Amino acid sequence: MEIIPVLGIGLAKEGDDVAELIMDGVKKSGINLEDGDVVVVAHSLVSKAEGKIVKLDEVTPSHHAIHLAKATGKDPRHVETVLRNAAKILRIGHGVIICETHHGFVCANAGVDASNSGGEAFLITLPDDPDESAHRIRSGLRRLAGVDVAVVITDSWGRPFRKGAVNVAIGCSGINPLLDLRGRKDLYGRVLRSKIICVADQIAAAAGLVMGEADEGTPAAVVKGLQYDKTNIPARTIIREEDEDLFR
Amino acid sequence: MEIIPVLGIGLAKEGDDVAELIMDGVKKSGINLEDGDVVVVAHSLVSKAEGKIVKLDEVTPSHHAIHLAKATGKDPRHVETVLRNAAKILRIGHGVIICETHHGFVCANAGVDASNSGGEAFLITLPDDPDESAHRIRSGLRRLAGVDVAVVITDSWGRPFRKGAVNVAIGCSGINPLLDLRGRKDLYGRVLRSKIICVADQIAAAAGLVMGEADEGTPAAVVKGLQYDKTNIPARTIIREEDEDLFR
Repeated sequence: MEIIPVLGIGLAKEGDDVAELIMDGVKKSGINLEDGDVVVVAHSLVSKAEGKIVKLDEVTPSHHAIHLAKATGKDPRHVETVLRNAAKILRIGHGVIICETHHGFVCANAGVDASNSGGEAFLITLPDDPDESAHRIRSGLRRLAGVDVAVVITDSWGRPFRKGAVNVAIGCSGINPLLDLRGRKDLYGRVLRSKIICVADQIAAAAGLVMGEADEGTPAAVVKGLQYDKTNIPARTIIREEDEDLFR
Repeated sequence: MEIIPVLGIGLAKEGDDVAELIMDGVKKSGINLEDGDVVVVAHSLVSKAEGKIVKLDEVTPSHHAIHLAKATGKDPRHVETVLRNAAKILRIGHGVIICETHHGFVCANAGVDASNSGGEAFLITLPDDPDESAHRIRSGLRRLAGVDVAVVITDSWGRPFRKGAVNVAIGCSGINPLLDLRGRKDLYGRVLRSKIICVADQIAAAAGLVMGEADEGTPAAVVKGLQYDKTNIPARTIIREEDEDLFR
């Protein structure tokens, strides 16, 4: 399996076609995009093209946001943006607000980020429907390059119990994000009873190793040589329902 | 970056030298192991060589284990083994016992697993000190092949909030598992304030894509072409301290 960073993608702006930006980078990087490849895209690229940028100057914080800003050491307008992107607040502490987003994702600050947003005056938020975004990028790549690839859109999230963020899949198209091994046998012939693998999150994490989080400017990567289930299932199926979750 | 499965590794037994098993597979797979490669090893291979196999017949369950077995639908001897490997129980439900292990890891069933343990009569547990195991494998590979590689030992864990297991790093040697980007600048020159990446978990997840979880018999992989911090820091530093954890 090979994971190749897509270099030379410029800074995106609202209205840009993400598939065109990626194809431009793919060509500049000398990558031969083929059927069955997986194209991994950082949500920051998608969010910018979809106009999911918030100008801090235009945000009026509520009383609740001002109160939470004091508790977390954040800008009240930043907290207000987090609250607008949150369906629920789960925990507050250590400078973060752990939220359930409108998509159902559980992550810090409802996915609202200040890094690579365009400067101190801006925040970047998640796409409204990352599965739909992935589908659109995949269709675009088929139209532009005549290839049938899978697309995975990622964000970098912290976790309970473990330090450090890892890339996870927040949207996908052309792939089943979960691989159900139940019923298959292990090396000794014992039938596996509970093993489901989150392939999409493993792909996202793998791509995170070459994509960079700072000023590298590599918001996409191409995975070659991976065997995966090409059934088209959205990444929202990765979300564990609240009544099956032991930590919500 | 390239991730190559190590094929042809036989079934390990107590007392086997893991570095020898890996080198045997590396040769059979035609892999040219080089300085700077990362060798990723499933803990099952390490645990077996270290004799971390429990015979169910030899386990006498306590009253507590018998009680918990009814609540979780597990074999009482399996539950007893989980309790012996747990320092704390955090949650019980949906057929799993979420534990803090003696190492400090938070995972289902204290890492005690029935798959690839050797059959229905056996369970497999985590190595006593996976960082020390990784160090020993790394020294062995240096001795056998004259190469300086990093070693990451993995297990496949479920997560709160998200379905499906992903491979994570439980031991490492020759690598800093955490990459601290604080102080670096983003694409727009904004200084990153809070970004730490768990590179070791991303490596583990990436290798999980080629290693397999069922009967593939590929308990190791070699990662080539990855830039990483070669400072030798143990994987136990990934554990988030309880007082910094919002979900314990």
